[in-house]
Amino acid sequence: MCRLAAYIGTEIPLENIIARPRHSLLVQSQDAQEAKLRVNGDGFGIAWYGHLPEPGLFKDVLPAWADTNLPSICRLVRSRLFLAHVRAATTGASSRENCHPFTHGRWAFMHNGGIGNFGHLRRDMEALIGDDYYALRRGTTDSELFFLMMLSNGLDADAPDALRKTLDQLLGIAARRGTAGQPIRLTCAFSDGTRIFAFRFADDRQAPTLYLSDCLDHGGRAFASEPLEGPCARWRAVEQDQLYELAPGRLDVHAIAVAPSHTTSLRSLSA
Amino acid sequence: MCRLAAYIGTEIPLENIIARPRHSLLVQSQDAQEAKLRVNGDGFGIAWYGHLPEPGLFKDVLPAWADTNLPSICRLVRSRLFLAHVRAATTGASSRENCHPFTHGRWAFMHNGGIGNFGHLRRDMEALIGDDYYALRRGTTDSELFFLMMLSNGLDADAPDALRKTLDQLLGIAARRGTAGQPIRLTCAFSDGTRIFAFRFADDRQAPTLYLSDCLDHGGRAFASEPLEGPCARWRAVEQDQLYELAPGRLDVHAIAVAPSHTTSLRSLSA
Amino acid sequence: MCRLAAYIGTEIPLENIIARPRHSLLVQSQDAQEAKLRVNGDGFGIAWYGHLPEPGLFKDVLPAWADTNLPSICRLVRSRLFLAHVRAATTGASSRENCHPFTHGRWAFMHNGGIGNFGHLRRDMEALIGDDYYALRRGTTDSELFFLMMLSNGLDADAPDALRKTLDQLLGIAARRGTAGQPIRLTCAFSDGTRIFAFRFADDRQAPTLYLSDCLDHGGRAFASEPLEGPCARWRAVEQDQLYELAPGRLDVHAIAVAPSHTTSLRSLSA
Amino acid sequence: MCRLAAYIGTEIPLENIIARPRHSLLVQSQDAQEAKLRVNGDGFGIAWYGHLPEPGLFKDVLPAWADTNLPSICRLVRSRLFLAHVRAATTGASSRENCHPFTHGRWAFMHNGGIGNFGHLRRDMEALIGDDYYALRRGTTDSELFFLMMLSNGLDADAPDALRKTLDQLLGIAARRGTAGQPIRLTCAFSDGTRIFAFRFADDRQAPTLYLSDCLDHGGRAFASEPLEGPCARWRAVEQDQLYELAPGRLDVHAIAVAPSHTTSLRSLSA
Repeated sequence: MCRLAAYIGTEIPLENIIARPRHSLLVQSQDAQEAKLRVNGDGFGIAWYGHLPEPGLFKDVLPAWADTNLPSICRLVRSRLFLAHVRAATTGASSRENCHPFTHGRWAFMHNGGIGNFGHLRRDMEALIGDDYYALRRGTTDSELFFLMMLSNGLDADAPDALRKTLDQLLGIAARRGTAGQPIRLTCAFSDGTRIFAFRFADDRQAPTLYLSDCLDHGGRAFASEPLEGPCARWRAVEQDQLYELAPGRLDVHAIAVAPSHTTSLRSLSA
Repeated sequence: MCRLAAYIGTEIPLENIIARPRHSLLVQSQDAQEAKLRVNGDGFGIAWYGHLPEPGLFKDVLPAWADTNLPSICRLVRSRLFLAHVRAATTGASSRENCHPFTHGRWAFMHNGGIGNFGHLRRDMEALIGDDYYALRRGTTDSELFFLMMLSNGLDADAPDALRKTLDQLLGIAARRGTAGQPIRLTCAFSDGTRIFAFRFADDRQAPTLYLSDCLDHGGRAFASEPLEGPCARWRAVEQDQLYELAPGRLDVHAIAVAPSHTTSLRSLSA
Repeated sequence: MCRLAAYIGTEIPLENIIARPRHSLLVQSQDAQEAKLRVNGDGFGIAWYGHLPEPGLFKDVLPAWADTNLPSICRLVRSRLFLAHVRAATTGASSRENCHPFTHGRWAFMHNGGIGNFGHLRRDMEALIGDDYYALRRGTTDSELFFLMMLSNGLDADAPDALRKTLDQLLGIAARRGTAGQPIRLTCAFSDGTRIFAFRFADDRQAPTLYLSDCLDHGGRAFASEPLEGPCARWRAVEQDQLYELAPGRLDVHAIAVAPSHTTSLRSLSA
Repeated sequence: MCRLAAYIGTEIPLENIIARPRHSLLVQSQDAQEAKLRVNGDGFGIAWYGHLPEPGLFKDVLPAWADTNLPSICRLVRSRLFLAHVRAATTGASSRENCHPFTHGRWAFMHNGGIGNFGHLRRDMEALIGDDYYALRRGTTDSELFFLMMLSNGLDADAPDALRKTLDQLLGIAARRGTAGQPIRLTCAFSDGTRIFAFRFADDRQAPTLYLSDCLDHGGRAFASEPLEGPCARWRAVEQDQLYELAPGRLDVHAIAVAPSHTTSLRSLSA
């Protein structure tokens, strides 16, 4: 379990989301309120968009609260669109390769949750990565793998369709291999540098929390695992089984339809 | 605030203290029960004595629970006397230089607590380090500095006397400079490879907890911030203002007499 | 390209191989004489056998010469059989997961060299890992993958046979996929805690150097990328296409027969 | 010995100095041509000025060529004035605290060279740090200490005067304590965000190299330990005993007059 935040809007210093709010991502790294684990000390990462199509990427394995580079970078670097993540390791060791976000080309991706029984599903999942993306596999997390499956399924061309296909594949593998009673939970945010996509999905319908802000002080909007400034009317819960697509001045919501057979079999497996 | 443990007895794998007990030091690093901070994720360290007079030293900045080397070293390395520490940073950044234990020659030293208003006392404290030890200063912690003061005050020749002198110097500096209402709290354990010394001292008489076990399963004895296997009759609290000196088959307790004038003035300062 | 050393004999401190000789592994990390790259600063690792069947493992990403833990561990830890490695990264980032040796159960494995065009061979190689070993894949190196293939091919039951099968599979994949004119070079040492195996193999017959010592001062023997104490009669070059099996008081040499068709096609590819 | 570069001019991506030139700082970290040590693998650091008076700071202990964050930050971060440094450790362990540049308020400072016999001069040098700056001491390097002495000597008010005073103090201490035949060599660059200062000074007149470019392609100018694009007319050597002050469109050179008695006694000491 982890905590994450993603911002889109006018250019702001990263710290306006990561460090300055009363319940900032940095605070959540030490004292999460709505997560299974209160402490998210197994590394952190930021992907931010600047003057190039490809995002910058800064990750490290120290707890976010202890890293001496993070405050400086958050204060100096400004961005109109960025993703930030603090990690509580579930699968995969504490290495930079296993820290979120993961990037490829214009895309950046991060995940909160876990894929139950991943050790037994991993091989079948990796088999579905396209040849073009196979060499990108750097770490051992379920999260990076899910991202590579989405890329293989045409994320660049049609994000909602790629997500549906990937979930369908994952549930198919889980149905075949079994999840040993453990849930599949995915609360994710990802971006191509123009929009932020975010969704919550879980086969037991208990995906980790995610909130979407209305207009923040500085004009932009953000997704966050927990409202950045305490419970207030300006944050609303992201609904499950919907893919949110947030662009400046516009929010689209796409239904994520998953083949009923899979969800049925999975629900009974995890019951 | 930190958590620590020190063992003396028959040779055992380090993991018998650090990792295997139900409430091991590793568990305390994630879930301390009697500390101000529940999480001690800012690095760890072990000093262990083997076939040489000087101890081995292994420190790193990752949280103890996340370090991949630690379990292996704890399983393979055996020792008859070792000190182990997990850190929650108060002063000094997360660097190996600031992780405990600190070593010099045969000596290893670790500390739990903090010296109030240290930034203002530091210069006067450093001025009291003997020339022979000044070059040893590696980091920026109050803990390393207290150790170097003890060495300068003759730790090698007479440990209780060196401790008394050092406390007296520290309280004198604190009286002169003021502690801005913050307490001076020292719960320490240190060793020369033949004995473990441990004490609790605080100018507000609220030194961090420390316990001493009776005979453990494997014949040895240990000090620990919290009993390693839950509250039971085999651990008793270490009293304040006493220096415990634990050798195989023998426990001596020395009173730490501090000049009344200092304690009086300090109590009024911190009141 | 990397530098490595492996010792078997009476119990000695690790430093007797790693740090004390005039041309120790530590010296080779900064100033290799017979390697393509003079500096091997991308991490290091040690696997050592002690009182358990499974080896201890200590790896880190800092240059060996800069790591503050390494000297202490080399001085204090004693072992009758250990493998040590300093890395110059060719494939795979500087992460602990990509540092050698790799271990599984009783086995430890390390590699010097590289598999040409690995990015294009990787998928087919990973497909040959047995299900039991697939979950062990932690990093992205060709080296770890070769080790997992050997385990899958029965390393535990018959090491020479497992090596031959693995080389045969690798050359088959290389013949199918092509190596883009890059050589496959493997100079490896591995152990189950009772013997050290070592071999040199290259499809262009230019495997990295490896030497075997006669009796060292302390009674044991060692393999090393470069003689530890300068050129002298007591070290002889390890021949290519032979698997050396070194146990206390005994050296066996097994021929590595590789199917002619593969070697032919590869030679022409890399010509 | 280290390698360094400092840029001032129109805003450019950091990589234009650090990574893209044929003989970039990154190349120099692996293959310095004019340094005592060819490899500078003991960490790196960048201080850059952006929209705030205080610089951003990014340092790490991995070799610059191996750090995965560095390329991304160099590509995305743009600046009109920045300092960059790759380190070959002489005094002080490989820790972020000991990596250059060092910063305080608007100032950033970096050093190439070394203060001979520093272990014996350190105490007297630290005694000269003003109370206001004493708490800033983070590491153990001679470089950070020289910077704190300059700050204490009024760097903010008059840089040439602060440098002269600091050199005078240093040479006085060296004359009193002796340098054991080792030279004092300082090639430094520092900035307050509006100008870059740089100088070469050595008591044996062999300060590490430093070059100043004429106008670079992108309009700015740079200091660098070695010309960034090989020997060409557009780089000229910085002369010793001069403080260069480089601002957009302007270069001032201040003489560094050091009291003759000191230099005389030092020359005889190091002869």
